[in-house]
Amino acid sequence: MDKLFVIKIGGNIIDDEVKLQDFLMSFSHITDKRILVHGGGKLATKLANDLHIEQKMVEGRRITDQPTLDIVTMVYAGLINKNIVAKLQANNLNSIGLSGADGNTITSQKRQSELDYGYVGDVTKVNGKIISAMLQEGLTPIFSAITHDGKGQLLNTNADTIAQELATGLTQDYDVTLIYCFEKEGVLLDVEDESSVILKLNKSKFEELKESKAIHSGMIPKLDNAFAAIDKGISSVVIGKAEKLSNLISGHNGTTII
Amino acid sequence: MDKLFVIKIGGNIIDDEVKLQDFLMSFSHITDKRILVHGGGKLATKLANDLHIEQKMVEGRRITDQPTLDIVTMVYAGLINKNIVAKLQANNLNSIGLSGADGNTITSQKRQSELDYGYVGDVTKVNGKIISAMLQEGLTPIFSAITHDGKGQLLNTNADTIAQELATGLTQDYDVTLIYCFEKEGVLLDVEDESSVILKLNKSKFEELKESKAIHSGMIPKLDNAFAAIDKGISSVVIGKAEKLSNLISGHNGTTII
Repeated sequence: MDKLFVIKIGGNIIDDEVKLQDFLMSFSHITDKRILVHGGGKLATKLANDLHIEQKMVEGRRITDQPTLDIVTMVYAGLINKNIVAKLQANNLNSIGLSGADGNTITSQKRQSELDYGYVGDVTKVNGKIISAMLQEGLTPIFSAITHDGKGQLLNTNADTIAQELATGLTQDYDVTLIYCFEKEGVLLDVEDESSVILKLNKSKFEELKESKAIHSGMIPKLDNAFAAIDKGISSVVIGKAEKLSNLISGHNGTTII
Repeated sequence: MDKLFVIKIGGNIIDDEVKLQDFLMSFSHITDKRILVHGGGKLATKLANDLHIEQKMVEGRRITDQPTLDIVTMVYAGLINKNIVAKLQANNLNSIGLSGADGNTITSQKRQSELDYGYVGDVTKVNGKIISAMLQEGLTPIFSAITHDGKGQLLNTNADTIAQELATGLTQDYDVTLIYCFEKEGVLLDVEDESSVILKLNKSKFEELKESKAIHSGMIPKLDNAFAAIDKGISSVVIGKAEKLSNLISGHNGTTII
């Protein structure tokens, strides 16, 4: 089976023009097939502020009302997505920017919970057939974190989840590695010490570190998700810095979860 | 050869939720392959006003400076494009929203002229191969009027021109009809009388009507373009009302240029 890397980047890269340019160059140099998933960054918040649209928060959670959905659709699926694609084309990487509505690639449903999150979607299905066809055509999909419910409604969706669902949704056709880029070198034994990266992490070691409270509590849901993805057939999950993408791919940096 | 309809809609449909919904329903019911090209409408101007971004005009022409390019990228390629795609998915039409950067489908170059139009692009190439592959895959491309120069720069591009270049760029693979939707029933002999539609127009009749000044001057560049498209291998160009799409397709409404 062909290798496929599903790579997620967040605001710390998107908001920094130089870092983004460097990352996209490394991304273009990957020799295997690849998919990029990008979050939003500060641009959407800035635009909301400039338009005097109040960010609604309930119990510490951001609510996506209609004006906010319009803003994230404009910024994520429009401005950020198309600029990334144009930059990759300049690197001779033929990429295609997508929301989940495009090609019906990712459907979701409005989140069901006591708290009304507004237009927030939880992924229900990844259409692996269309995505595989694009990859076979030589196209590199670039996903923004906007999906749709199949009934005409766009929905704001967590980019980490999209990356995981794409990765697990493509395991039938590809040997998939999921790479989460974030601001740290990897999973750290000591959160203050960037050199304390755990290079390889399996489930029993993870349980051990959880038990001894050695792993920072904020990392636990991320890692729970990573192990869940492994259970669904992904070969490995790598967590580390976008600035070291080529080393994350070769396994020389970051934490590899197996 | 398979038939292909390339259909362009403008602000009068995009800005009217009910008309847009009706149009998209008719568009979904077309039995042949089809491509949609949409312009911008008033939303981009509204967003610019809300953000206090001044529209720069030089000699009566709008200039696309960097803030304006960001706005049209957000509104055309983001908000409008993704909402159209989501609505078509609800009609069970598997569509895919594209800018010219996506799949490197349409390249352009920054307009060369005495007057600096800013980030405005004139189409240089349509990548028919990728677009045909999408059509063969069962996908319906929905183009916003944003293209790229292949060197990382997005460019604001005239939607009429994009429709014409797509239509002529696909004549090798398809029997192409180009449909321009606008606010009138078609080319009118008397601009005040919607019932004075010229049903069929060939070049000699066009020259005759130009000579006698029977055709409204604003229509002349549109028609010159239409005849140029015919010369490049398009089967026919139809001009008429989006509200009557199915009749434009069957040739029962609008002006057909042959």
